[in-house]
Amino acid sequence: MRADELQRLVDESPLHRQLELRVSQVEGGKVVLDGRAGECHLHCEGSEVTHGGIVATLLDAAATFALIALTGEDWSTVDLRVDYLRPLPGGPLRVSGEVVQAGRRIGRAGAVVVHPESGRECAMATGTFVRTVAQTGVQH
Amino acid sequence: MRADELQRLVDESPLHRQLELRVSQVEGGKVVLDGRAGECHLHCEGSEVTHGGIVATLLDAAATFALIALTGEDWSTVDLRVDYLRPLPGGPLRVSGEVVQAGRRIGRAGAVVVHPESGRECAMATGTFVRTVAQTGVQH
Amino acid sequence: MRADELQRLVDESPLHRQLELRVSQVEGGKVVLDGRAGECHLHCEGSEVTHGGIVATLLDAAATFALIALTGEDWSTVDLRVDYLRPLPGGPLRVSGEVVQAGRRIGRAGAVVVHPESGRECAMATGTFVRTVAQTGVQH
Amino acid sequence: MRADELQRLVDESPLHRQLELRVSQVEGGKVVLDGRAGECHLHCEGSEVTHGGIVATLLDAAATFALIALTGEDWSTVDLRVDYLRPLPGGPLRVSGEVVQAGRRIGRAGAVVVHPESGRECAMATGTFVRTVAQTGVQH
Repeated sequence: MRADELQRLVDESPLHRQLELRVSQVEGGKVVLDGRAGECHLHCEGSEVTHGGIVATLLDAAATFALIALTGEDWSTVDLRVDYLRPLPGGPLRVSGEVVQAGRRIGRAGAVVVHPESGRECAMATGTFVRTVAQTGVQH
Repeated sequence: MRADELQRLVDESPLHRQLELRVSQVEGGKVVLDGRAGECHLHCEGSEVTHGGIVATLLDAAATFALIALTGEDWSTVDLRVDYLRPLPGGPLRVSGEVVQAGRRIGRAGAVVVHPESGRECAMATGTFVRTVAQTGVQH
Repeated sequence: MRADELQRLVDESPLHRQLELRVSQVEGGKVVLDGRAGECHLHCEGSEVTHGGIVATLLDAAATFALIALTGEDWSTVDLRVDYLRPLPGGPLRVSGEVVQAGRRIGRAGAVVVHPESGRECAMATGTFVRTVAQTGVQH
Repeated sequence: MRADELQRLVDESPLHRQLELRVSQVEGGKVVLDGRAGECHLHCEGSEVTHGGIVATLLDAAATFALIALTGEDWSTVDLRVDYLRPLPGGPLRVSGEVVQAGRRIGRAGAVVVHPESGRECAMATGTFVRTVAQTGVQH
């Protein structure tokens, strides 16, 4: 899948558009997305830290898009483990997703959120995914 | 902690306010929050399914607030496993969090998202948490 | 599935026989197994604590057997999260498994290890499973 | 920590000795252990596949020893996610552990089990760990 094709899928979600997610790289089973956590994505008013739920959103999206980009098919998240390593500051952010295994039924992928200014990994995730027939959600 | 005290903490996050999270119940190590997934929280435009990142946000919040309500102290998420059982429709939602263990350093809590109309569990989570000194984020 | 049928499957594994696992209860999607951690299952020589790998083995077995007992079909573990709550002393032990969801392709189940003398939960787990065609292992 | 020092700790567990675990490499936050799954570690009699509980044992051990080797202190597993990618055949096996983060209180480490003959990854894990005061088990 090409970056512009993947970008179209990314843009289907209002949440991804809010986070200004742009596909920076698609290669084999790896995708890189750049974005930005705004005021409404912070942990609390006046905080300098992005909400953990937003971090999970980014990781889930990157891992899922890595599987979609590799296979050209749609995948749904079955389960996801998120490890919060350190706070992700608001502002520019980068999230990478990588396919571990794309099986006939089950896929595995990981993802990492990096704070681009410091280059530090702020959170990482590992998830299990299932191929979906339609784009209407989880179809186990 | 009383429901109104917890509500004040819940309201500190713009994301929680967007999701209209109201504390419905606080008792021992259990909290129940009612809310609403709006247009901007859906998986994609025209979809009837809430974005998985929003579901993770709800579960993380409920589990963390269960620990906060029980102990009166602040906790940060160390890691979280989310299991997506079935799509959560947009609109009204309910999320419950429950403390499993509140240790000296480490806490464990679980959470469940239910679709109130059908009464069905849509997702569940288990997480590990750490007591934080200040409210500025993860302090391992 | 009846307790004696399930016991035959449990006994197929040398590791389960070493742990003296006996099916105490099978009902709907729930199974209870009683067993015993011997000298060779302890964390280290002279320790009074069961090895964490043995605890994971018990949890995985109980969750998988809950799915097998409910459906009469074989399931393989796709992924498993184990939470170690407190040390499990050597000697008598009890592990319960419970089905959360038995879908067409994907199953979810949880398990808890209890120290029967104290009644305390020592570890718990949540896992994702896949129906297998043959008993030769993971068939994703 | 030197390989021979780590080997002494590895050998304290009867289960590790049964699996013939030998420290092949220790460097920074990375350890490699070689071992062997025997008859009693197989999924069932006559099976060619190692029991999932043994795989979890290997991953837990390698991740924990990576933290111990890096810091010279003892760590206990708080939680562990295991992903079973494909069956691990009985016989020779290799497991590597790597530190992700060694914080003041909390550590994170990952591990991978490889089948040395084929070079294929059979399972991987990510875990959260806590520094322990004594070697008597989990001390949260």
